[in-house]
Amino acid sequence: MKIVDKINANIKEGKTFFSFEYFPPRTEEGVENLFERLDRMVAYGPTFCDITWGAGGSTADVTLGIATKMQNLFGVETMMHLTCTNMPVEALDNALAEVRKAGLQNILALRGDPPKGQEEFTKIEGGFGNALDLVKYIREKHGDYFGIGVAGYPEAHPDFIVDDEAQMKKNYWDSLAYLKEKIDAGGDFIITQLFYRVERFLQFVEDCRSIGITCPILPGIMPIMTYGGFKRMTTFCKTDVPPAITDALEAIKDNDEAVKALGITLGAEMCKQLLDAGVPGLHMYTLNLERSAVGILEAVGVLDTSKVPRTLPWRQVPATRPGETVRPIFWSNRPKAYLHRTLDWDSFPSGRWGNSRSPAYGTLSDYQFMRRHTSSDKRKDAARAAWGAELAGPEDVADVFVRYCKGEITMLPWAELEGLHSETSLIKEQLLALNAAGYLTINSQPALNGLPSSDPQFGWGGPGGYVYQKAYVEFFCAPEKLQPLLDKLDTAAAVTYIAVNAQGDVRSNMKEESVNAVTWGVFPGREIEQPTVVDPVSFMVWKDEAFDLWGSEWGTLYEEGSSSRKVLADIAAHWWLVSVVDNDHVKGNLFEVFGL
Amino acid sequence: MKIVDKINANIKEGKTFFSFEYFPPRTEEGVENLFERLDRMVAYGPTFCDITWGAGGSTADVTLGIATKMQNLFGVETMMHLTCTNMPVEALDNALAEVRKAGLQNILALRGDPPKGQEEFTKIEGGFGNALDLVKYIREKHGDYFGIGVAGYPEAHPDFIVDDEAQMKKNYWDSLAYLKEKIDAGGDFIITQLFYRVERFLQFVEDCRSIGITCPILPGIMPIMTYGGFKRMTTFCKTDVPPAITDALEAIKDNDEAVKALGITLGAEMCKQLLDAGVPGLHMYTLNLERSAVGILEAVGVLDTSKVPRTLPWRQVPATRPGETVRPIFWSNRPKAYLHRTLDWDSFPSGRWGNSRSPAYGTLSDYQFMRRHTSSDKRKDAARAAWGAELAGPEDVADVFVRYCKGEITMLPWAELEGLHSETSLIKEQLLALNAAGYLTINSQPALNGLPSSDPQFGWGGPGGYVYQKAYVEFFCAPEKLQPLLDKLDTAAAVTYIAVNAQGDVRSNMKEESVNAVTWGVFPGREIEQPTVVDPVSFMVWKDEAFDLWGSEWGTLYEEGSSSRKVLADIAAHWWLVSVVDNDHVKGNLFEVFGL
Repeated sequence: MKIVDKINANIKEGKTFFSFEYFPPRTEEGVENLFERLDRMVAYGPTFCDITWGAGGSTADVTLGIATKMQNLFGVETMMHLTCTNMPVEALDNALAEVRKAGLQNILALRGDPPKGQEEFTKIEGGFGNALDLVKYIREKHGDYFGIGVAGYPEAHPDFIVDDEAQMKKNYWDSLAYLKEKIDAGGDFIITQLFYRVERFLQFVEDCRSIGITCPILPGIMPIMTYGGFKRMTTFCKTDVPPAITDALEAIKDNDEAVKALGITLGAEMCKQLLDAGVPGLHMYTLNLERSAVGILEAVGVLDTSKVPRTLPWRQVPATRPGETVRPIFWSNRPKAYLHRTLDWDSFPSGRWGNSRSPAYGTLSDYQFMRRHTSSDKRKDAARAAWGAELAGPEDVADVFVRYCKGEITMLPWAELEGLHSETSLIKEQLLALNAAGYLTINSQPALNGLPSSDPQFGWGGPGGYVYQKAYVEFFCAPEKLQPLLDKLDTAAAVTYIAVNAQGDVRSNMKEESVNAVTWGVFPGREIEQPTVVDPVSFMVWKDEAFDLWGSEWGTLYEEGSSSRKVLADIAAHWWLVSVVDNDHVKGNLFEVFGL
Repeated sequence: MKIVDKINANIKEGKTFFSFEYFPPRTEEGVENLFERLDRMVAYGPTFCDITWGAGGSTADVTLGIATKMQNLFGVETMMHLTCTNMPVEALDNALAEVRKAGLQNILALRGDPPKGQEEFTKIEGGFGNALDLVKYIREKHGDYFGIGVAGYPEAHPDFIVDDEAQMKKNYWDSLAYLKEKIDAGGDFIITQLFYRVERFLQFVEDCRSIGITCPILPGIMPIMTYGGFKRMTTFCKTDVPPAITDALEAIKDNDEAVKALGITLGAEMCKQLLDAGVPGLHMYTLNLERSAVGILEAVGVLDTSKVPRTLPWRQVPATRPGETVRPIFWSNRPKAYLHRTLDWDSFPSGRWGNSRSPAYGTLSDYQFMRRHTSSDKRKDAARAAWGAELAGPEDVADVFVRYCKGEITMLPWAELEGLHSETSLIKEQLLALNAAGYLTINSQPALNGLPSSDPQFGWGGPGGYVYQKAYVEFFCAPEKLQPLLDKLDTAAAVTYIAVNAQGDVRSNMKEESVNAVTWGVFPGREIEQPTVVDPVSFMVWKDEAFDLWGSEWGTLYEEGSSSRKVLADIAAHWWLVSVVDNDHVKGNLFEVFGL
């Protein structure tokens, strides 16, 4: 969807919106960190996110890769920056084609900074010399397909900021006229350069309107995060900084925490003035960090991290998976692995799982998602600290699960994100007891009997509804524990289960084609929504992934042939993976069956 | 589905089953009565019902028509009898083709009785002389398509019942050999002639098994209902009646009620012995009456009318509408009209309404269903008694609705069956108040918040589940009442409504494409089922039917140009039909909005 349409919809609804800008990290580690941050920040509901192109297109591939994942795996409307720097037409064509293929529909068209080591921007052979030509070219080649953002400069472009007041005034109006040309050529909306004088931005908007620029103009907000960074950036951009800010910063410049805190305070003051003046939304330059940008938005009341709205219990990816409203529970702690394995699906399950799903799960070939916690030496060290430098036997393994439940460690191979899902808080004690008893849990949810859909922890789906869950738990257990457990489960009327080992031997009281809705919601004027299901078919796909992670993630921490590896390999080869649903969401007590 | 497959499935599950046999009534009135009875009796869950062909095929068209409706409108697996009497091959071909076209898959192949006025059966030119040839012919022409039942005679066919004991023995074994031929030729199962000696039936089964007949054999149970009828039938069939039965009957032969009661007692004794001896199911000759057949089944514990299982809140028609699991609420008191208007649909909504429905409702051309209560002079008299010989104004009309709510009258034009739906019992007082206040209700349901699916009144869907409802009410109201009501509805957070008049003016707070699930159920190991919905699209179709019934049903009671007709026409022309859902099934109180 075009960002300008989302912006205009927000304006029409009178809803103050915000957006986050990121840059491509230089290391793989940095990219992973960015993804973790994105995962949280996207949940806050930005209208869009954008990712810069990197000076001179040096990080083109990284930018493209991140933009694609932002759009498709994190499910946020994504805008990729594109600059003329070092970009011959063929390279531009390629980039636009790739972006389009990846389902992105938004480009921020920029001239770009000079390549590293150069002082001045120069047009390359077979390339473009300014953003205007780039906008024209995109419109010429791709018609109306792309939404195009362009940059606006409340203090004129730094190249044209001079001391001569008369000349400066001319330069300013020239830059406005040029901005109008970019809009007339097909630009949809404007994001401004950073600024620290609100009155300058408001004057800029007024001046834009006076020459007939009518599109949305978003203020670019750069939170002050470090003294050094602030100095470099404002010098580079020739930003006019009010002496009050400079003075306040100078006084605390050696105290990083104080600078950050001041940055949030100053940023919030600026944003409040902007919003009071009628600015419809805020574009945050995050510098890939969460705290300052989110802190400012929270301070001005645009964002409440304690009330992040959820349309479904899991995050939708509306851009590329429109209408997807149901997923199996098995991947709920590995949503990106699920997205990855179903990227090739032509259509996504909508409303119900049984009738419309494609059973063709793809393989999980992407290393990065497969080995979430051990994909670098640094991560391996952290994982080893959490999961043990050596494993003497299954007891040591069980101990890891117990410590995970206690919150003493925050990662497990079967969860992409760190820490227990907040949903499990209601059953934390039971999970702890379960793991201590040797049932090593990797997924669970408590029963819910009609909580308001506005519940801060469990609510989803919009106002006025009720949400429900059947209790679920999924765990590995040793073969000798299986039969006694199944005997108990068989006597529990409301319990359905599937147990499977790595060889694919199955013990179950469910029909193979059955689909069990374990999360559902009742809303005003709508059909019943049932976004999470348990189904044996998907479980049989998931179990391969689940068993594989013993070796492919955890096992890689240890030397080949080590006894620790053997411990894990034995478990993977002989233990069972068991999925249990208590179907009585009103009076059931799943953990009673285990004697807990 | 073939009946033998249903029988075998029951046998495999160890579930004692039953079936009902009917004959084609001679009058239109009789057909309507049969349909009302069928409507109740099909709900008891017979494995199949069958309808006889009538002596000499005299009622062929009636039989065909009834069989088609039994299968498609009442949703019971139906077997049509077909006899050789007076049936040339072309007539048989036509009948089989029609039956097949109507979706029936089961035939009881009989030789048939001699035509009226003849003593002996004679084969007609170009026809068949016995059931064996008929079975062969059906298999030859239709291969494996039809399930074929055949008749068995525990006392030999009456034509071969003679006094000479040796000859009788030979005749008996001849008739068994002939029965085996019918099975070998393609008969799937056997229904026996009526009998009153259980040991005779059991011997018959044993003898059948001894000569290699392995298919299911159902005892045909003819309850004694009247003394005269019993005498006629047993004489005609040369049935061997134990003297104890004859004596008992003779003693009370002038007391019809006592005969019926004795018939149930005797029938129950017989059936108990049969079941104790391992008979898998009971075939009841109902003679188109309910009490005796159902009474016997209840007495032996095969049927509990107080616990009629419902797979959905409305009765499914699995044979021709496989997988149909959702319907709009509007026709819930006129299910046959709904079936009728959607007979041409290629596929039926399954699981959800919004995605899969065909919006193409057919017209309601079938007079019989359109004018349910006024389709004959006799019915008109009854309707006039209920709805008033004269209507002075809307107050008289409202009074009819009030008396309907009070149970003083049992029919309304907007309900096919007589009496208020039992579901409304929870809100009877509120409905009464609503109608007294001039909101003339034609459909409603109370809110339910998780009743066990085994609830005798509201339960459906099988064991171990919970059922839910949103409160619903639909009514006509005078135009001057509309705006004050809508003002109230607009302030009630959880209420959605659509109001429409005959001209199609709409007042609503629902999106046109919205679909609101108002009945749903949560079951072990299954997706959430949501069998009843409220949707504006169907409502706009329904409203034409609802407004039309003022004139086309009620109005026909009065002279053209009469003031009573004018009262009804005025209401139809100016009043509004309003559909209201309280979306809060947990804490809502729909009737509060009305000040009730």
